[in-house]
Order: sequence, then structure tokens, then C-alpha cells
Amino acid sequence: MRSVTCTAPVNIAVIKYWGKRDETLILPINSSLSVTLGQNELRAKTTVATSKSFKEDKIWLNGKEQSVESPRIQNVLKEIRHRTRKRSTGDVRDETLNMKVHICSENNFPTAAGLASSAAGYACLVYSLAKLFGVKGEISEVARQGSGSACRSVYGGFVLWDMGKDESGKDSLAKQVAPADHWPQLRILILVVSDQKKHTSSTEGMQTSVKTSELLQKRVDVVPQRVEDMVDAIDNKDFQKFAEITMKESNQFHAVCLDTYPPISYMTDTSRQIVRLVHAFNKQCTNTKVAYTFDAGPNACLYLLEEDVARVVSLIKYYFPTSDNNTDLEVRGLSVESSSVEEHINNFDMPQTPDAIKYIIHTQVRPDAVKYVIHTEVPGSSVHTVPMKIRVRIDLQ
Amino acid sequence: MRSVTCTAPVNIAVIKYWGKRDETLILPINSSLSVTLGQNELRAKTTVATSKSFKEDKIWLNGKEQSVESPRIQNVLKEIRHRTRKRSTGDVRDETLNMKVHICSENNFPTAAGLASSAAGYACLVYSLAKLFGVKGEISEVARQGSGSACRSVYGGFVLWDMGKDESGKDSLAKQVAPADHWPQLRILILVVSDQKKHTSSTEGMQTSVKTSELLQKRVDVVPQRVEDMVDAIDNKDFQKFAEITMKESNQFHAVCLDTYPPISYMTDTSRQIVRLVHAFNKQCTNTKVAYTFDAGPNACLYLLEEDVARVVSLIKYYFPTSDNNTDLEVRGLSVESSSVEEHINNFDMPQTPDAIKYIIHTQVRPDAVKYVIHTEVPGSSVHTVPMKIRVRIDLQ
Repeated sequence: MRSVTCTAPVNIAVIKYWGKRDETLILPINSSLSVTLGQNELRAKTTVATSKSFKEDKIWLNGKEQSVESPRIQNVLKEIRHRTRKRSTGDVRDETLNMKVHICSENNFPTAAGLASSAAGYACLVYSLAKLFGVKGEISEVARQGSGSACRSVYGGFVLWDMGKDESGKDSLAKQVAPADHWPQLRILILVVSDQKKHTSSTEGMQTSVKTSELLQKRVDVVPQRVEDMVDAIDNKDFQKFAEITMKESNQFHAVCLDTYPPISYMTDTSRQIVRLVHAFNKQCTNTKVAYTFDAGPNACLYLLEEDVARVVSLIKYYFPTSDNNTDLEVRGLSVESSSVEEHINNFDMPQTPDAIKYIIHTQVRPDAVKYVIHTEVPGSSVHTVPMKIRVRIDLQ
Repeated sequence: MRSVTCTAPVNIAVIKYWGKRDETLILPINSSLSVTLGQNELRAKTTVATSKSFKEDKIWLNGKEQSVESPRIQNVLKEIRHRTRKRSTGDVRDETLNMKVHICSENNFPTAAGLASSAAGYACLVYSLAKLFGVKGEISEVARQGSGSACRSVYGGFVLWDMGKDESGKDSLAKQVAPADHWPQLRILILVVSDQKKHTSSTEGMQTSVKTSELLQKRVDVVPQRVEDMVDAIDNKDFQKFAEITMKESNQFHAVCLDTYPPISYMTDTSRQIVRLVHAFNKQCTNTKVAYTFDAGPNACLYLLEEDVARVVSLIKYYFPTSDNNTDLEVRGLSVESSSVEEHINNFDMPQTPDAIKYIIHTQVRPDAVKYVIHTEVPGSSVHTVPMKIRVRIDLQ
């Protein structure tokens, strides 16, 4: 049995992807731009294996076997095998071509947290398969066909997914607009909201928006300028501009969801309270210090600079305490110093809401995109032992 | 002392008014359309009085004295006096012209309920003053200058506020598109949501939207067709069409609020749960039986037909029970029969939320618009006794 293990990061869009012009190739109606997060805090890890003994393609997500029949997984497998076949040179890959694949993927963060894991997952799957089958070239095009936003997790730092023009999708690719070390002061706080309801899947949601939202077209006209402005903001490390575009983008995306029929609401009262807190804090600082963005769920992702992290975290801990007076709201990931918030509390007209936030993840922009972890050859394995072996190997990382 | 007492109804827009092209004359950026509700359930009552003994203009709202300096009240007083002066014929009105006015206005519903009362209030004020000063002609133009939506409360039934074209505002008037008895089966349920937070005032909110929302312009382009479709729906008593436009309108209005910067959120988790309930119910009926609309607050206004009221109210009582098992959610206004909801409950994937709704007001479309109640002459009164006298008189109605 030959196997390859890779990891891939999560990316959080500051210019949102919402709406496809081609459902099969996954071609978007607008370009999007995202920041790739550190893998220590959030990453998907995938092992793919081939063996003569495998009778069928199989997939395990976080230890549970899933149907491999999902069109997206089929897209990816077909595309990778197609590319392998094209460049097959009569070596080992010829036989792998006829072998079935076992896929085992796990995240280092709870999927229940409602964090978009499909981007990291598909980026990781595609990259691992490419390594296994020795496929070279543009991976983001294949990742895109698994999950649109996955193409952005192929690169680290600041990544633009150019919508492209071509019907074939060959120019609808992700590219890095700036490396992570271009703006090392940037920090990200993910506020995991407690009440994770069942949400409209983004796939279904964006389909309905394209069909029913009258405002979506206007948004599509607006985005190109926003992308330009955002690229400038990043080039110049202009946080104010970066933050303002990020917030307006998030709001407009959710406005389009609300204009969809029936309406889609991903944000909750807690999400809105976070929005109010951010605007109140910025107003008091007479300077945009923090930006929020929300994806297809209630969790907030805050962008801010290293120097403000301590104050902002203390503020969040104050307004979203735990009902247990002895324990503070938990912060995972990068460490945070404590700081006083007196100056703010007195001036904000906001209630404290216990247990509304489950925990905070503190992370940063990182250079590491999808990466290769390990490649092994295990003599003769069986369908049943593979996932275990793979998981053992994963645990060793 | 001469006094006039009048009452005016509340109106609920199905095509929303959001944004002014002229702040002083209160000229809207789009036409709007509303339904005038029954005054037994919701009405403003205003008494205006003049007397030589009055030293200054004064106003009492629900028993509390307020500043008469508000620009809107000043607009109204100036406009009424201006019109009186123009048509003054040397009779009693000449002396009233130089007299100060005392205004006393009260609603028959708790203002804390967060129901838009300014429309009824200003319609009532303007109508009473017109009666007192003997001003004839188009009242809705004056009412509009107090509070935009007030011009629609001047008429009963189904009322269109034509945005008009003229800079003077003389063609920005309300007119009835259908009388109440045109569609007597129509019923309205107002769900008063418990958590009434402080909201961005609609005056301030629409100003910010006009300044910052990129989607607002698109909405302005869309509304004229919607108004046409809505008028057709009303003409043909096509409830399905009426309901769908009403819901899309409400959603789009709140989408624009969210696209405003900083974003405005009037709807809460409870509002959104009502939205989900309505769509779930309609879906199960395979027929649009209920429509929701939300103004600048979390309360829901449901439009439905008489035949469905019992079922819908039972459904609301089930999903929004009181935490006290012995008391049902209170329904004020028109009586409602009880009905079984088994068929629905089993199929809806929705939680029950105790105490999220304070009470329901059940009302209908009514022909009665602003109306004249009583006109009296009271010999010699003082500034201090007037409001009491007025309130006594009001209580006698």
C-alpha cells in the first residue's frame, strides 16, 4: 500500500464568494479574496492510500466512513485520474491508476464549531491525491472543483480567487497577492458562538440567492472595485481600509442572504452583538482597530493588529462571560496577555451575555499552505486495517 | 377655549418607505403602499385647543409634556397656520391665528410595544389642527411633513403614497387604491416581541442608508414594478401574490438596513423564528397562506385571510408559549377560535421559545381613517387645566 499524508489550512474570506455561474465546474459570479490562517490552530489533515487489495474507493471523515458518491469527491477523483492518465509514462503510476483509493481526513478543530472546514478539507484531499498520483501543475483548479473556496487554501498569506472568464474554468484560479510575512502584525480572533443551529448549506444557499435575490446583481457589479481596493489596502498595510472593506463586505453578503427568498439568516443575536461591540470599540478609539466578518454561520472572525489583541480579548471576555464566575472565556491558540477594559466598559451601552460565546481561537496569517507531511509504502494491507493505520500515522504527526 | 378631538389609525406598509430625497419636505426616494388598520385595536387620539389665555404652544404625549420645538411639530404648526392665513376671511380664524395651541395626544396601545405610532400621531395632529383652524384641502401633504408615513394614515383601506416628482412636494401625496370593504376577508396579526431593545430611529436609519448602502439604489429601481404588482394583487384579491411581494419587500428593506454602514438590525432571533415558522407553514400548506412584514423593530405583522386565523394563532401559541403553563399567549382585539395544530407540529423542525412573544393583536383592514370626534367651546381655561380637561374629555370617548 502506498500512502501520502498532507495538511491544509483554513482560509477566511474578506471578499466573499457567493454564487456560481457554473455549478459543475464551480465557477463563481465574482472574484473573492481571503487570508490563510495558521495550521497550528486550524488545519485539515488527509491521508490518501492506494493498494491492489482495495476493492472500492472509500472515505473516512474524522473517523466516520462517508459515502464516496458525493459529486464533489467524484469530481476530484475523476479530475486527478484524468490528469494522471494524460501524463502517464508507464511507471508505477500506471498501476496506481487502476487502483482504488482510501481517503482519511481529520480536522484539528471540532467540526461542531461550525467553522468552514470544506475549504481546508478539499485543498488537502486534492494536494494529497496529486502527490500520490504524481500529478504536477495547477492544483487550485482541481481543488476548486471540490469546493470553490478550497482553491484559496492552496496558498498561504493573502489569496485572490480570480473568477476568470473562460467557460472551461481554466482561468478561474487562486493566486497569492501577498505572502504572510508581508503583514506579520495581522491577527485573527475566531469567536465560536455557542448556539450552532442547523444552517442552510452554502451550496444550497448561494443557488437560491442567484435564483431569487434582486440585490445580488448589484453586488456583483460592486465587487470588482472592492477587490482592487482590498489589494491596495493589503499592499499598503492600510488596516483602516482593510477593516472597513472587510466589514462592508460581510454585511453586504448577509444582506444578499436576507434578500434571498425564502430569506437566509446566518447571523444570530450574538453575532449582531459582536458587530455592535466592534463598532462601539472602533468609535471610541476614533480609529478602526477591529474588523468582523461572518461566513455561512453565526461565528465571528475578527481581524486586528497584534498590539490590540489583549484589549479586544479582555473586552470580549467582559461582555461574553461564562456563567461560572471562576472560569474565564477560554482562548485557544496563540497566547494573549490580560488587559484592563475599564475605559471602554463605562462608555458602552451594552449588556453582558453569559455563555453566548463558547471559546475564542487566536491565530495569525501564516505562510504555510497545503503541505506534504509523509509518504510511505506499507506492504500488503487490507481495506479494514487501512483507516486505522492511517489514523495511527496521523496521531503520530 | 376652542378644542377639537380626532382619532387616526395605524398603517402597516407592505411596500416600505426607506429613504428621503428631501429631508425638510420629507419627500421619499420611492413610493410606498400600506394597509390601514382598525382603530378599535390601534389608534391615536389627539385633542388640540386654542385659547387667548395660552402663552405658548404646548404638547403632551400620553400624559407627559414634550418639547414643542421638534422640527416636525414646528413644520406642521407652521404649515397649518400658513394655510389658515392664506384663506383667512376675517372671521373667528383670524383671532385663532394669533392664539397659541395646546396639543394632547394619546394612543390606545402601549408605546413600549414598539409599534410605529408616529404615523397615526401626526395624521391625527394635522387633521385636528385643520379642523380647529378650518383648513380645507389636501391634508396628507401636511401630515407627510410631520412624519412621512403619516400621510398614509389619512385614508382607510389600501393606501399608496406616490413619491411624486415635483421639488415642492405638492404631488407627493397619499391616495386610496382600494377601500377596506374591497377585501373584507383580510386579517392582521401583530406579534409584539418581548425584547424591545433601543433601536436606531427610522429617521436616522434611513439617512445613513441613503448615505452608505450600495444596494439601496438597486432597491429604488425595483420598487416601481413591485408597486404595480401589489396594486394588481389588491385589485384581484390575489392573496398569494400580495403575500409574496409583502415578504420579499420586508426582507429587502431589512437587507438594505444590513448593507448600511454601520449596519442596522431591527429583526431579532425571535423575528427570524417567526419568519421560519411562516415559511414552514406555507410550505406545508403548499400555498402561501400567511405573509410577514417587519418595520423598524422586531415585531412581526402577519397578513392572512379570516379562514386561516384560528390555525395560525394556535400555531403561534404552540411555538411561543408562556412559561406559565396555566396561561396561554394573550390575543387582544378581534376574537379567535381555538384550533388543533397537531398536523403541523409533527412536521416542523422548530424549537418552542417561551415568553419570546408578549402578546398578539388581532385586527383587520378598516374603512375609518382619521376622523373627527368632538368639537367644543369651553369658556376661559388656563394653561394648567387644559391638558386635564382634554384628558378627561378623551377618557369620555
